Amino acid sequence: MLEKRTPIAVGEAVKRVMQYATEGKVEQVDITESYGRYVAEDIAADQDVPAFDRSPYDGFAIRAIDSAVASAENPVAFEVVGTIGAGFVFDELVEPGQAVRIMTGAPIPAGCDAVVMLELTKGYEADDKTYMTIKRAFAAGTNISYRGEDVKQGAVLVKKGTYINPGVSALLATFGYAQVPVFVKPVIGVIATGSELLEPHEALAPGKIRNSNAYMMLAQIERAGATAKYYGKLSDDLAVCIEAVKKAMAEVDCLITTGGVSVGDFDYLPAIYEAIGADVLFNKVAQRPGSVTTVAQCDGQLLFGLSGNPSACYVGFELYTKPVIKAALGSQAPHLRREKAALGVDFKKPNPFTRFVRSTVTVTDGKLVATPSGFDKSSAVSSLADANAFIVLPGGTRGYEAGMQIDVLLLEDTNGSAWPWDNIVPSYR
Amino acid sequence: MLEKRTPIAVGEAVKRVMQYATEGKVEQVDITESYGRYVAEDIAADQDVPAFDRSPYDGFAIRAIDSAVASAENPVAFEVVGTIGAGFVFDELVEPGQAVRIMTGAPIPAGCDAVVMLELTKGYEADDKTYMTIKRAFAAGTNISYRGEDVKQGAVLVKKGTYINPGVSALLATFGYAQVPVFVKPVIGVIATGSELLEPHEALAPGKIRNSNAYMMLAQIERAGATAKYYGKLSDDLAVCIEAVKKAMAEVDCLITTGGVSVGDFDYLPAIYEAIGADVLFNKVAQRPGSVTTVAQCDGQLLFGLSGNPSACYVGFELYTKPVIKAALGSQAPHLRREKAALGVDFKKPNPFTRFVRSTVTVTDGKLVATPSGFDKSSAVSSLADANAFIVLPGGTRGYEAGMQIDVLLLEDTNGSAWPWDNIVPSYR
Repeated sequence: MLEKRTPIAVGEAVKRVMQYATEGKVEQVDITESYGRYVAEDIAADQDVPAFDRSPYDGFAIRAIDSAVASAENPVAFEVVGTIGAGFVFDELVEPGQAVRIMTGAPIPAGCDAVVMLELTKGYEADDKTYMTIKRAFAAGTNISYRGEDVKQGAVLVKKGTYINPGVSALLATFGYAQVPVFVKPVIGVIATGSELLEPHEALAPGKIRNSNAYMMLAQIERAGATAKYYGKLSDDLAVCIEAVKKAMAEVDCLITTGGVSVGDFDYLPAIYEAIGADVLFNKVAQRPGSVTTVAQCDGQLLFGLSGNPSACYVGFELYTKPVIKAALGSQAPHLRREKAALGVDFKKPNPFTRFVRSTVTVTDGKLVATPSGFDKSSAVSSLADANAFIVLPGGTRGYEAGMQIDVLLLEDTNGSAWPWDNIVPSYR
Repeated sequence: MLEKRTPIAVGEAVKRVMQYATEGKVEQVDITESYGRYVAEDIAADQDVPAFDRSPYDGFAIRAIDSAVASAENPVAFEVVGTIGAGFVFDELVEPGQAVRIMTGAPIPAGCDAVVMLELTKGYEADDKTYMTIKRAFAAGTNISYRGEDVKQGAVLVKKGTYINPGVSALLATFGYAQVPVFVKPVIGVIATGSELLEPHEALAPGKIRNSNAYMMLAQIERAGATAKYYGKLSDDLAVCIEAVKKAMAEVDCLITTGGVSVGDFDYLPAIYEAIGADVLFNKVAQRPGSVTTVAQCDGQLLFGLSGNPSACYVGFELYTKPVIKAALGSQAPHLRREKAALGVDFKKPNPFTRFVRSTVTVTDGKLVATPSGFDKSSAVSSLADANAFIVLPGGTRGYEAGMQIDVLLLEDTNGSAWPWDNIVPSYR
């Protein structure tokens, strides 16, 4: 009656899942809708930046050679023959002894090779003409932003799979991406299981608890860059469950179920997987929490059977589902970002399994410090609110002291890791 | 002709702006729409968690005292008198020598005070009854999650102004917040100025550049948690500009203009402020880039006149506009989060003004390392894409060497700082 399950290492479990990860489709969105999306192709410069030699300051464009003899005792006067506002072009050649009033960003007129800042000049009028004087020499090239000095045409500035932050938005605008190619957000379905579950709007009843996992995961899915679709709670009737899962699978890229994955009489998930012909990739992982995390595939479509326990569910999503989402969004580093941190408190418990401790990473004097969020019971919903990382404690260790350097996996991060699972000692029980 | 402006310190400038910051209105959104929003009231537990004594494992609920004499040599048998699935209640009193099969999360039946994990039991049938045996004693309290041990009813779990991450979503669901009170997103208008500007869909032309600032800021506004409204580019006609600004002000909480704030002939902004009766809070700050950042208020409504220079515009938004948005969202720490980091490269340039260098902060061996993103010309759009921080170099310093500890302000962060501006030495030229 009691099913035997063989635990596998976390890295091995992730590998099995990632065999079924695929890059998503591409769609064009308006640049104003592109913040927070992931670019679906390399973004290259369609022009030099600056596109022309231009002035970084308000001032006067001159021929540097004309200023060579200028000094405090011997100011040199220039006749001001015109004005160029940003966006305009001065279309005459500037002759010896002439200057052009130039605004920030305006193109350097032909003949000129230096700009004198407005503050360093003195203007006057004479004979119906405008003049300005300067009191020192300026070398050729002074205050000129040269064409292409920031970016050369053709340079790849943003790689496929990059998260669009405000700086990337600026680049997209600069290079004419009024429409931006982005990866379509994968759609991740969520089904809750468990006779004990109430929805948030329902009143509490004896023996029942409110369904927090589904709402937690809707947020995790959004944070990962996907679209969540919530199907509510499965019925307690197996045949109805099977139909509900089939229906959901037809509408989503991946399907997550929570609960129903423990080894117990009332858990339907194995029966559902069998009924739909799904191939179970693993159903036991050498980790805590989430040892009964199950992943299956059906014609290449991934089904995540996450624990009904909130912490185990949270960890299971971040370790196994999130990288599939990031891969669909073109990421070359789809896994949680791994960094070193100092442990903020003693963690004396011996540790037979690789443990993922929900933690808050802060910075003290330039160093990352990781402290478990709340006490570490796997039922503790309250400890999740502050968590921005997992502390990873490899299995087979005897406990840790404050100040020791440990690995952390960062949760509020868009960079990721290409593969964080080497040198994390796996543990088999 | 040349307007004299008196620079003020960054902290003083921020203070003047924050005098006009106000907390926003509150709205109710469905919990499924609440990810990434900011809660508008303290969230308290409407129940104990667990709400009843429950089993954290699949197993058998027993009276601990009945197991006292159990050993490998002397297994003790219990009659299994029922089964409790999660969500159900066993409504009889368990008598001496009896056990109840119990699922994870189910309530402990009356009379029982310990749970034995399924794996540690052996079942058999006899006389049409079901029995299980155990081979050791279990203390009272073994494997029981007690009512309220995670959260006590009435405890405040999430403070007003907290960013809703997946862990907060779980808490909201647990405590019945099907509708979540969140702060209304402030609406921030953006108007671009500059005859040189083309929109991203327009072809390049001599002397013109594409408008990157507006699109960059739309993303900055979204990142800060507000809604952006883009009004396009202002006409070159002053009267038309004044009308456009007035119209926009009526529709938004704050209005940002970019460009037009330098000291130059073609800059309309001071004239616009005068025409609408706005009170200029400052128009020169002792900082680079962004020294001409201007902020005005008109009947309490803030108008941000940011530089047309992309880097200066970016810095101006993060320093002055973002904290106003965060304050509207109830944050007690509305400013950029300040941390220490090691400088990744030499920065030899002497530094007469407080400088904000767009940088990429990475973690090496558990320590923050900040490296300027690209070369530090204030026109360099390309350096903005990787930036996730500003390095802050106080004015009056002579340059820095790699490895020195400096201040950074983090850009991709939802925690913030209450006040990061003390002990950053201001500089006046």
